[in-house]
Amino acid sequence: MSSTSPDGDFSDPRPFSLADLPIRDDLRGLTPYGAPELKVKVALNVNENTHPIPEAVARSIIEALATQLLTVNRYPDREFPALRDSLASYLGHGLTRENIWAANGSNEVLQQILQAFGGPGRSVLGFPPTYSMHSIIAAGTGTEWIAGERDAGYEISPQTAVDWVTRTDPDLVFFCSPNNPTGTAITLDTIAAAYDATDKIVVVDEAYAEFGLAGDPTALSLLPGRDRLIVTRTMSKAFAFAGARLGYLAAAPAISDALRLVRLPYHLSALTQAAAVAALAHAPEMLAMVDDIKRQRDRIEDALRELGYTPFPSASNFVLFGGVPDSHELFEQLLERDIIIRDLGIPGHLRVSAGTEDETTAFLDAMRDLTPSR
Amino acid sequence: MSSTSPDGDFSDPRPFSLADLPIRDDLRGLTPYGAPELKVKVALNVNENTHPIPEAVARSIIEALATQLLTVNRYPDREFPALRDSLASYLGHGLTRENIWAANGSNEVLQQILQAFGGPGRSVLGFPPTYSMHSIIAAGTGTEWIAGERDAGYEISPQTAVDWVTRTDPDLVFFCSPNNPTGTAITLDTIAAAYDATDKIVVVDEAYAEFGLAGDPTALSLLPGRDRLIVTRTMSKAFAFAGARLGYLAAAPAISDALRLVRLPYHLSALTQAAAVAALAHAPEMLAMVDDIKRQRDRIEDALRELGYTPFPSASNFVLFGGVPDSHELFEQLLERDIIIRDLGIPGHLRVSAGTEDETTAFLDAMRDLTPSR
Repeated sequence: MSSTSPDGDFSDPRPFSLADLPIRDDLRGLTPYGAPELKVKVALNVNENTHPIPEAVARSIIEALATQLLTVNRYPDREFPALRDSLASYLGHGLTRENIWAANGSNEVLQQILQAFGGPGRSVLGFPPTYSMHSIIAAGTGTEWIAGERDAGYEISPQTAVDWVTRTDPDLVFFCSPNNPTGTAITLDTIAAAYDATDKIVVVDEAYAEFGLAGDPTALSLLPGRDRLIVTRTMSKAFAFAGARLGYLAAAPAISDALRLVRLPYHLSALTQAAAVAALAHAPEMLAMVDDIKRQRDRIEDALRELGYTPFPSASNFVLFGGVPDSHELFEQLLERDIIIRDLGIPGHLRVSAGTEDETTAFLDAMRDLTPSR
Repeated sequence: MSSTSPDGDFSDPRPFSLADLPIRDDLRGLTPYGAPELKVKVALNVNENTHPIPEAVARSIIEALATQLLTVNRYPDREFPALRDSLASYLGHGLTRENIWAANGSNEVLQQILQAFGGPGRSVLGFPPTYSMHSIIAAGTGTEWIAGERDAGYEISPQTAVDWVTRTDPDLVFFCSPNNPTGTAITLDTIAAAYDATDKIVVVDEAYAEFGLAGDPTALSLLPGRDRLIVTRTMSKAFAFAGARLGYLAAAPAISDALRLVRLPYHLSALTQAAAVAALAHAPEMLAMVDDIKRQRDRIEDALRELGYTPFPSASNFVLFGGVPDSHELFEQLLERDIIIRDLGIPGHLRVSAGTEDETTAFLDAMRDLTPSR
């Protein structure tokens, strides 16, 4: 009997493993995506909002979920009109239900975009270092990933964007602004220039938009007249809703028509729809912690600079910093103190999420201890 | 300005539409999957469990959801161990957490299976008429769909299965048992013979397994020693949980390892995980209505036969029946009476889900009215 044996007879000397299965050749030898899931006291590694949602909001959500349970035996609404109305109203910019689409996290939104507009024989241009799932989802959908290059300081000028678009002629262009993991916001001029340089799809991943600097523009303002432009968002960060999995996009109505051809029917559960609608009805309370998080982010930037590191200016809820002599060692030293941040494999650099005031203090105190005076 | 214009200036004489977007060539001209979402009194068209979940169970689920909301700002557990334990325990057959994987509906489970083992240059053999999403998901993942042929009465003998597998050499074989839309259960001999005839993946979609006839075997009993066999299930039907979106599979642990390479990280929300675990803790109450549904199904078979139609023997929660002179007309006549069933495009045939006793009575009364005595 083999390793599947449910009765515990594992007498096969060589257990059956992944290598024995007829998986696709391009998957062989890969390891699954994923930050380590360690239980530590101060978790500042995956850019979560570390503030729990307010109790009054939780109460509203529970009421909405309780109502949904009465009909949970029925399939959910495939078109989730109430949720799309709520998202449009939250985004403003004159957007309506027809401009909105949503899925289980912005990862799934991006996957549907690549299924509809990318895939085998097609390509997507991105600008690393950027959100690692962009290239992973490209691979998962058979879309060729073209790695563009950024200017100094991780910026992308309009000219740089246009040069890359013209030279590589991709089927999609992915921007991430503010960019994960660098925190860099790109200008609307860059997005508009890239859009004008192609007749294909341009995506701006704005997962961290709500943490932007005062007056920071959003690509939502570029949507009028640009039918191939897609702006993706998430409730995971500013809305402290990572556990509920709700990503969405704003675009011309025809974009949703395209995604309807590739989405799995009933992809958004009735519970997800209800929880998100209830949370969006409390947008001001849900977003109340955003200002505090921005203060903690600025505190991290200042303190790390004082300690001699080189933090990059961030318009997000995290800070990438360089000047680390041994990033692996520092990561491990922090972990010993029950603090986890993120080692992204950029030599000499680490990324830390802005936590609550206490979590941020714990991180900065540890950094002061671990940094030899220079 | 184009149709995206958020300020209502729709002065463009030709609105921008799906046809103007650079979607994949193989998607051009397609229309989205989906049964009509009509508001009717008696909805027996999508094989839902029309019984709401018991109030006591709903209470448990709400408590579990309330607890999860306290930490919904954090990403959910990517490995959902509690849910996998609960599903393994529910299935029995000596299965453990390592044998289980889950996703947002069995559609997503099947999509992940095709992403890992199918895709461009690979093929999947199915046996129409069968669950229409099988070929749609195959297309969505770029997997060639090979349509096998069934024996008389929609059966598949071991020899028929082996002939098709040998002749077409597919990368995956999909069975659906009991089969949607025919209700036909296939024998374990057929599955075992198909498995032995290939060294590739064999999937048995058992979405309706709990409605099987007394003593009906499940392919779960075939898992020991068959590391390439996958049995998929759903909580949508017997558990009356279609709105919560929870599909799952049982297989060798290596199968989950393969799916981890293609699944989007955090694909199952914390709310989905908690709701499903709470429901599974009440499996006996949740499944209490299964017996009643089977009684209504048998009632439908008997009554339709008496009326002169030819219902196919069903091991599921629905009945396919032939002998309809004009299926489109009968569908519309029922709709006029606030009853919706399913027209699947099989000439002379319609499919009806078994509802509550009252819903079933309403359907059968209407059928008696609409059927001229012969």
